[in-house]
Amino acid sequence: MSGALSLERLFAPKSIALVGIPGDLSRPGARPLHFLRRHGYDGRVHLVNPRHREIGGLPVYPGIGAAPEAVDVAWISLPAAQAADAVAEAGRAGVPFAVVIGAGFAEAGEAGERHQARLREAARGAGVRLVGPNTEGFVNAWDGVALTFSTVGEVEALRPGPMAILSQSGGVGGCLLNRATDRRWGAGLFVSTGNEADLTLADYIEWLVHDGRVKVIACIVEQVRDAPRFLAVARRAVAGGIPVVALKLGRSEAGARAAHSHTGALVGTDEAWRAWAQAAGLLLTDTLEQLLEAAAYLAAAPPLQGNRAAVVTSSGGMAVILADALEPRGYTFAPFAAETVERITPLLPAYAAVRNPLDITAALPEETFGEVLGAVLRDPGVDQVVVPLTMATAGGGRARAGQIIQAARGAGKPLAVCWPEGSLVCGGFQVLDEAHVPLFHSVGDCAAVLGLSLAYRALRHRTPSGGPDPPRLGLTLPSRGGALPWADVRALLLAAGITPADEVIVGTEAEAQAAAAGLRYPVAVKLLGPLHKSEAGGVRLGLGDIGAVLRAVRELAPRGEGCLIQPMLEGVEVLVGALRDPALGPFVVVAPGGVAAELYGERAVRPAPVGRGEAEAMTVECRALSRLLEGHRGRPPADRRALAETIARASALAAALESALLEFDLNPVMVGPEGAGAKVVDARIILRER
Amino acid sequence: MSGALSLERLFAPKSIALVGIPGDLSRPGARPLHFLRRHGYDGRVHLVNPRHREIGGLPVYPGIGAAPEAVDVAWISLPAAQAADAVAEAGRAGVPFAVVIGAGFAEAGEAGERHQARLREAARGAGVRLVGPNTEGFVNAWDGVALTFSTVGEVEALRPGPMAILSQSGGVGGCLLNRATDRRWGAGLFVSTGNEADLTLADYIEWLVHDGRVKVIACIVEQVRDAPRFLAVARRAVAGGIPVVALKLGRSEAGARAAHSHTGALVGTDEAWRAWAQAAGLLLTDTLEQLLEAAAYLAAAPPLQGNRAAVVTSSGGMAVILADALEPRGYTFAPFAAETVERITPLLPAYAAVRNPLDITAALPEETFGEVLGAVLRDPGVDQVVVPLTMATAGGGRARAGQIIQAARGAGKPLAVCWPEGSLVCGGFQVLDEAHVPLFHSVGDCAAVLGLSLAYRALRHRTPSGGPDPPRLGLTLPSRGGALPWADVRALLLAAGITPADEVIVGTEAEAQAAAAGLRYPVAVKLLGPLHKSEAGGVRLGLGDIGAVLRAVRELAPRGEGCLIQPMLEGVEVLVGALRDPALGPFVVVAPGGVAAELYGERAVRPAPVGRGEAEAMTVECRALSRLLEGHRGRPPADRRALAETIARASALAAALESALLEFDLNPVMVGPEGAGAKVVDARIILRER
Repeated sequence: MSGALSLERLFAPKSIALVGIPGDLSRPGARPLHFLRRHGYDGRVHLVNPRHREIGGLPVYPGIGAAPEAVDVAWISLPAAQAADAVAEAGRAGVPFAVVIGAGFAEAGEAGERHQARLREAARGAGVRLVGPNTEGFVNAWDGVALTFSTVGEVEALRPGPMAILSQSGGVGGCLLNRATDRRWGAGLFVSTGNEADLTLADYIEWLVHDGRVKVIACIVEQVRDAPRFLAVARRAVAGGIPVVALKLGRSEAGARAAHSHTGALVGTDEAWRAWAQAAGLLLTDTLEQLLEAAAYLAAAPPLQGNRAAVVTSSGGMAVILADALEPRGYTFAPFAAETVERITPLLPAYAAVRNPLDITAALPEETFGEVLGAVLRDPGVDQVVVPLTMATAGGGRARAGQIIQAARGAGKPLAVCWPEGSLVCGGFQVLDEAHVPLFHSVGDCAAVLGLSLAYRALRHRTPSGGPDPPRLGLTLPSRGGALPWADVRALLLAAGITPADEVIVGTEAEAQAAAAGLRYPVAVKLLGPLHKSEAGGVRLGLGDIGAVLRAVRELAPRGEGCLIQPMLEGVEVLVGALRDPALGPFVVVAPGGVAAELYGERAVRPAPVGRGEAEAMTVECRALSRLLEGHRGRPPADRRALAETIARASALAAALESALLEFDLNPVMVGPEGAGAKVVDARIILRER
Repeated sequence: MSGALSLERLFAPKSIALVGIPGDLSRPGARPLHFLRRHGYDGRVHLVNPRHREIGGLPVYPGIGAAPEAVDVAWISLPAAQAADAVAEAGRAGVPFAVVIGAGFAEAGEAGERHQARLREAARGAGVRLVGPNTEGFVNAWDGVALTFSTVGEVEALRPGPMAILSQSGGVGGCLLNRATDRRWGAGLFVSTGNEADLTLADYIEWLVHDGRVKVIACIVEQVRDAPRFLAVARRAVAGGIPVVALKLGRSEAGARAAHSHTGALVGTDEAWRAWAQAAGLLLTDTLEQLLEAAAYLAAAPPLQGNRAAVVTSSGGMAVILADALEPRGYTFAPFAAETVERITPLLPAYAAVRNPLDITAALPEETFGEVLGAVLRDPGVDQVVVPLTMATAGGGRARAGQIIQAARGAGKPLAVCWPEGSLVCGGFQVLDEAHVPLFHSVGDCAAVLGLSLAYRALRHRTPSGGPDPPRLGLTLPSRGGALPWADVRALLLAAGITPADEVIVGTEAEAQAAAAGLRYPVAVKLLGPLHKSEAGGVRLGLGDIGAVLRAVRELAPRGEGCLIQPMLEGVEVLVGALRDPALGPFVVVAPGGVAAELYGERAVRPAPVGRGEAEAMTVECRALSRLLEGHRGRPPADRRALAETIARASALAAALESALLEFDLNPVMVGPEGAGAKVVDARIILRER
């Protein structure tokens, strides 16, 4: 980690000052002291409170500067209005890190935002790095530091594990930590990141990757605060073999409203988030449970080598349920290899069919289950084995679990057991959990997690996007916002290397007559002006001679700022657009053009800019569009390469417009037959009012 | 229940004969005897096995006829080849019901199918009604009859409850029953229905509704065996206030293969199943867990009166997660009523925002939580209250649970608690489960179940389909299968009251010339023949005069069976199609016509026939098509009423074709402006080869 921030003194401090510790140690404010002790913190803890000189027999200092040694972390538990001063004081005392808890900051309206701005300013001025505000603290199980007021500190013992949990919502993160502890997975580090006035998810991820103990990172994200850096850091984590699983809060309209009230965060649209997360290499889950199960699974399972799944069960019904759930997620169920069939056949009753998914039926001894499972695990054509079980397993399930553990030992291949919760087999659950065999109690979660496992494999193997990002553009922007006039639109397109259709602009019939010699018929005549032309009735298409052109100009010209005469182009109509998300930055969008775009809503979205290879992938992702480009119903294949080039350049334009961009549409881009190029027939560019 | 079959003697028998009981009572085959005793069966059990005269101190009879009294139910545990004879013997002894366990029947290939056919024949001949074969038996907790070999019989005590579980997969059903017992929901009746050679899901549902103790029915379905009757019975259950929740096994390709091997059932496509289930009023779940949670919730919750949800929590993050999950499922989050805001505001800290979803923040006393929740439950603008909680609840969660129970008491309004599993608050879980307050440990399941609750409300309030089903048609079918010639297609359309476009059929230029006077230009000339015309290059569109028509006929006529001349129609192109699912019967399909249908795949599907009201609903469900029909981009609104009439008549045609139908396409149906009607421009009807 070349020059990245070390968080060693934050997460494994030699000394901690608890600023604002209450005089009565039974109050919730004293929890960090109890939790630090309970979980064996081996550094020093200093209490700070100007109104006491002693609490519970411990000395109390009036200010952090009065502590008897250098302090690594100041825990600031004070009203929002006092936090900034406390951080400044910590800075003067040489404290490098502060954890600022308490609500009433940016999540709580304008007054709170002012408190947070002051806090951030104070921290910057004092050289103190902040966790929070509005955080519940952190739990570092690796080093035994439970600096938190979350009741998750009440767990009997911390359980270090290869998972880290980073959560912008403290309560939700605490849930995950409790459950990770219950299930014996453990979590090495839990950070309630709060409002992230200073340190952000990107900082914590970067440090975890550098630190080297983490094998998987689970994030709960309400707002990405430094999108380009987060994206780069997440990509590095994945490249280094550390999957980053994420749950996004605030997807629906009501959800977004609640997010606003919760962390003072504006939430980007769900679609932009998904495209951005995909580019960052995040593995997105739909639910809290799947987030945790995915993290635990990815930390435990050997690498997945392909999408060929096998199901081994003694319940035909469960075999069907699992196959139903896995196939739409990209797994296939290939027949077993001949040697596997040879090994299995003599073990099964005559009426059992040796096929994949495999139902060995309920009547066989437990050892047979183990032998069959072992044979399937050794099949070279199987990448992932799934064992769905039911209650119909005798003896509390312990024998079955033992067989599975024995078969899985040394297989070097991922295996998942899916065993719906039921008290009759909880002995089996315990045996599997103790042996760290991945066990799911929910079919839905099992299938979702195995889907993510396959997605992670694809991420690890994804090829570079095929061609470099287009060069940065230097643009001269019009000074005003809103929808740009056509002349400015055209100038920006040309500056970005995008080809508009040929055109002649005329203000009068006489000018049209003068241009007549240069026209290739049929042509279109369009009204120039601010309204959407076809809705304003400002378009005349397919005009075959100068007489028709003159009539059109006579009708249209007086209604706007003149007319534009273009040749009618043949080809596939495509929409290439862009928008800027306030949190995540610029995006480029591809969709079928014309009426189809409005009616069907098919589209591909990527953070901008994209290289030509990624642009081409976008045209493939739009399946209907792609079929049109291939040459639907006997038409010639379209110039997909030229379209990809246009998309890449449009994405560069979106990026170059920076914060001035609100959105733009190039619609339609007319894509001619192969070699004929792609031309922009119409376009709107809307800049933010500044 | 007018004349429907009573299953009273089956499920609450006075005497049971266990045929094929093993001599060694420690073997799995003796489980029914143990389970009947364990759970307090108060009737008589007779053992039948010709090879023993006494087992474990009990008398054993050589045949069922030798039992000392009339037997209500014969449990037949014999190899598949001997089952038919045993059932015949039971019939001779006057036994009305037999439960035939064991595999090796229709689920196990051809030999098994023969065994099953013999069994069914024997049962019919002997007047014995069958459960199974390939069943694990049943557990009637209401009356204390555990006639099963499923290890679910090992539960400490049966727990009668208002739920019934009917499962075509015994193992999966046993799972549900174990979990229902663990969670204190209980299940009054569990039936492993097996291969359903005789009694089917429809029979069990019908009896449950008649019996009157059931409040919700959970079904695991691999194959619907008597679709029209199941549909009628399910509708009656819903109409009687008994929701039927269902999980379908065998949706994916691999899943369907496994289903084939499991119950010898051919599985219809997922889409047809969904349309059929919707028509039947089934509430479909995606996972096993949701099936059970939905059944438990619907049995416990007061009726839902609308879609206005409120979230009350002390975790902002959980509020966002729930809102995200509920909004896409149709719930809205309206602001609280003024009096609710007035009640709540003084209870909360100044910085907390009184809005919905409501985060009361973590710092407040438990009683405040209860007071706030009570106020929200009393809000007249709230139909459904959801309380998401985290581990951040002190004291093991018992106090919080107590507050919730107190607030919910007498509210008469559905409330759901969503509390992710974690050992720190399992005390709270226990308190809520004991009080039968609906509690979900998974956000995903909670949201899915509340979505089903809303769907159930819509089912209960759905209006009749608006217009009667079209009259049954009497058709004369062509004797051969395959694609019908155009003359037969046209005759069937006319017989069904569907209007084809005007046409003239000509074989030669001379005939075209002769028809010239009657043509209204522009016209289309189409090749008559078996190939898809536009792909075969057999269509000439927009011909403006007789010269163009003659040229077209000269080119096309020699390639096929003559030409068809039609006027070019203006309007919206629609595809109206039909197909027959082997298990579920005929379906009608509506989609945008022409190229769009192929490219975008938008469609609406219903079991046929449909009335005109339902047909119109199909046109609305196709959202892009609907916008076209409304008059997109300045075009006049299309004749939706005529389209609906055409759909209804096409659906009647599909039903009237009965098993002869393979599929048909009317494509395009050209829908003119309002009042101008809808005409079939092209059509293909394909009959099954007989």
